[in-house]
Amino acid sequence: MIDLNSDLGESYGAFKVGNDHEVLKYISSANIACGYHAGDHNVMFETVRLAKKHGVRIGAHPGFPDLAGFGRREMKLTPREIYHLTVYQIGALNSVCKACDVSLSHVKPHGALYNMAAKDHIIAAAIAEAVADFDSSLVLYGLASSKLVVAAREKGLMAAEEVFADRTYQPDGTLTSRQEKNAMIHDPLLAIKRVVRMVKESKVEAVDGMDIAIKADTICVHGDEPQALEFVAALQTALKNENIPIRKSWGNK
Amino acid sequence: MIDLNSDLGESYGAFKVGNDHEVLKYISSANIACGYHAGDHNVMFETVRLAKKHGVRIGAHPGFPDLAGFGRREMKLTPREIYHLTVYQIGALNSVCKACDVSLSHVKPHGALYNMAAKDHIIAAAIAEAVADFDSSLVLYGLASSKLVVAAREKGLMAAEEVFADRTYQPDGTLTSRQEKNAMIHDPLLAIKRVVRMVKESKVEAVDGMDIAIKADTICVHGDEPQALEFVAALQTALKNENIPIRKSWGNK
Amino acid sequence: MIDLNSDLGESYGAFKVGNDHEVLKYISSANIACGYHAGDHNVMFETVRLAKKHGVRIGAHPGFPDLAGFGRREMKLTPREIYHLTVYQIGALNSVCKACDVSLSHVKPHGALYNMAAKDHIIAAAIAEAVADFDSSLVLYGLASSKLVVAAREKGLMAAEEVFADRTYQPDGTLTSRQEKNAMIHDPLLAIKRVVRMVKESKVEAVDGMDIAIKADTICVHGDEPQALEFVAALQTALKNENIPIRKSWGNK
Amino acid sequence: MIDLNSDLGESYGAFKVGNDHEVLKYISSANIACGYHAGDHNVMFETVRLAKKHGVRIGAHPGFPDLAGFGRREMKLTPREIYHLTVYQIGALNSVCKACDVSLSHVKPHGALYNMAAKDHIIAAAIAEAVADFDSSLVLYGLASSKLVVAAREKGLMAAEEVFADRTYQPDGTLTSRQEKNAMIHDPLLAIKRVVRMVKESKVEAVDGMDIAIKADTICVHGDEPQALEFVAALQTALKNENIPIRKSWGNK
Repeated sequence: MIDLNSDLGESYGAFKVGNDHEVLKYISSANIACGYHAGDHNVMFETVRLAKKHGVRIGAHPGFPDLAGFGRREMKLTPREIYHLTVYQIGALNSVCKACDVSLSHVKPHGALYNMAAKDHIIAAAIAEAVADFDSSLVLYGLASSKLVVAAREKGLMAAEEVFADRTYQPDGTLTSRQEKNAMIHDPLLAIKRVVRMVKESKVEAVDGMDIAIKADTICVHGDEPQALEFVAALQTALKNENIPIRKSWGNK
Repeated sequence: MIDLNSDLGESYGAFKVGNDHEVLKYISSANIACGYHAGDHNVMFETVRLAKKHGVRIGAHPGFPDLAGFGRREMKLTPREIYHLTVYQIGALNSVCKACDVSLSHVKPHGALYNMAAKDHIIAAAIAEAVADFDSSLVLYGLASSKLVVAAREKGLMAAEEVFADRTYQPDGTLTSRQEKNAMIHDPLLAIKRVVRMVKESKVEAVDGMDIAIKADTICVHGDEPQALEFVAALQTALKNENIPIRKSWGNK
Repeated sequence: MIDLNSDLGESYGAFKVGNDHEVLKYISSANIACGYHAGDHNVMFETVRLAKKHGVRIGAHPGFPDLAGFGRREMKLTPREIYHLTVYQIGALNSVCKACDVSLSHVKPHGALYNMAAKDHIIAAAIAEAVADFDSSLVLYGLASSKLVVAAREKGLMAAEEVFADRTYQPDGTLTSRQEKNAMIHDPLLAIKRVVRMVKESKVEAVDGMDIAIKADTICVHGDEPQALEFVAALQTALKNENIPIRKSWGNK
Repeated sequence: MIDLNSDLGESYGAFKVGNDHEVLKYISSANIACGYHAGDHNVMFETVRLAKKHGVRIGAHPGFPDLAGFGRREMKLTPREIYHLTVYQIGALNSVCKACDVSLSHVKPHGALYNMAAKDHIIAAAIAEAVADFDSSLVLYGLASSKLVVAAREKGLMAAEEVFADRTYQPDGTLTSRQEKNAMIHDPLLAIKRVVRMVKESKVEAVDGMDIAIKADTICVHGDEPQALEFVAALQTALKNENIPIRKSWGNK
């Protein structure tokens, strides 16, 4: 059983981003920007309504307050401030869900916040605490095997371990940095093969050729380019052929 | 029975506004900025905690997304966008309350949004609908006798009619525009006398010398200057001497 | 002789807008956003460098401080504030030009600021004064026959009267509001025919079928969609066939 | 001969900061915020006019684009982006000076940008290049003995070495971090004595009790609190008594 998630609602005013209508056809979970790194109150409503219409689970996608940097720039904030901004953004998206009569299902931090939380237990704990204090039935998405997954469980939250189809892994289970040449997997067939193995065998081949253990609860996919959409469609078909069902619910809501 | 409310949490990052610690000693309701015209996630947490400590009711104080104009500039937005931004801001402040284990009690629009909602039924209805869709047990504050009060009741909300101690009234019950010479009441004793009469007799003398009917559920006070604080203290004493109790609850929570 | 202008540099951080590389092949003047309604310091440098490379004249494209609304929402600001924000934005873009060793040629207000300046002489005068106080050799672009053109000349500036190929005109020379059904001209051939006539005969047929006088110094074109680019190419060809030369300079620089 | 400088124009819209009217009576150079970390186009005009009225030299005070953090948070930007944002902000303030018919005299980076430029030669060089490319007659202010002073001279700029009256120095000439207990000098008389010695003898006692060489071209003073203003007045008097003249010009303009 697997979840397919994608980051949506990343437009801002007249600035249009992504291809939400299309990618929603293939995924089971949408992570919706909350107005800090992308999204605005109008876009959030539009995206929540769209996700609801497609029967896709809705998650908050909180990021750093950095529209100009799209939340991809590291910010050195105190754990307390990270707790504050996470609560704020979850609350904002939750209110949109409430007004649209649909439930909030999960939280996935965005960009630099996600990456910092994967490596830094203090930041991870601040985020997990924010989620737990707001609603302990929310599922917290984090990089598979990362500090965020650990912190989520420490706070009593269900964690969803996230894997990436188009990225390579280091022997220690971390993603290869995008600065490295071999960070990306460009062959769609290989990417799909690796994903299927991660789901079925909980294993992936690291860059050194050795297998590492990895738990794949959810796969991150993109829909902003035609090629990306094609890949998602192909991935969906492959999962079906392998008899890997798409997750219907997280079971705790 | 009367409520004393004040707009708090209007600092933003290093920009410090107001004197929240002091004014909280005298009021029964705090309207807390939600990050659009003032306030930020840190200030919101600090202010909610402070209000909770003083046992003061907490309300969301949503405004236009206009930090540079402090929400005092009219924005021509669609009713739908006003609905969206109101839901967003209430949700954000509510999540802070939730994390601080205290209830959200009411909503009072800020600045230009408040003034536009007082006069324009469509805007008023958009705000009232946002409040009702989020939580119909919230009390909606609006200018006494205004469209916002009407819209609140139409949506099944409890409305709190707000009066101003330091402003004069037109024969039709609206506030005299600040552009006019006689808009403000500068004599504190006269201001207090008028407030007491509004509360006890539901009447106030308009600028033409004739009495008009006015319902006073809540009085707006300020604490940003020493003089303002002195006035609030004097008003509190006067209310006590007149045996007008401060409202302990809105009764519906 | 005619100038072809287009609004460029409207990306913001990771939010990508337009197709500047392509449209620069066809135009003689680029109006570059200055960071208030679109653009940022990085985008401004990139766009100035690109325009310089194509030998295209560079103008400042100041707008309202409203990124969320892309400068398309009316803001009620004082004439003094409009003067201030215009000076600021011209200065910012001019410094980018200076650092890139290229001259600033003109100023064209953006969006709601452009439209308000077309109709309101006080706003037009504030903008014209800002341009004149910064550098009186700059050309000020305004809607043909509008208040902005009048104000420019009153301040001793050269005015460039701008016409639109894809819009219809009212008998009084104003553009038909986009709210109206007949606001747009969808037939490219008709649009080009009208432009050629505006340039050659200084006349255009208004929506009532009568000709009105119009001076066409510059034509506004767009490049954000494939169709728009095709139109610009066709327009350029038509101008060539009609022996209407593209303006090499404004003559006063 | 010495220059007294202060950071002014740090209000933003309705958010009021500082006491510019008062401190301008005592200083010879004003560093004016440019809208990124503080200040806005209205505040910039007001402050430039006020400084001009007091005959105080005007400098641009560029900072990180971080209003919420007041430019005090480190941002990891590329040297190219730092170059861009410095050019933009100098240009914006210069245009205000131009419109007010007064010259721009210098540039002093703000907050985290200042601190990073003091230690990191690449950042320092990006800033110095931005200043030189805009106008090589501008004086660049930097922490005495820092990388910024070095970079300024490498780019052919005049550098003004800045000292702090209320801070202690490390044996290597850097300021003691504010995290340390002994970072601040709280005794005004001692602070003044140290400043006089820095100016007259180019020496200051470091925290280890040994003298270090320091060049004092300009002293940074504050005016935001009554105590701070008193200190500036006392410092001015002390400089007069010691026959240290206030610098009338930087000599290169």
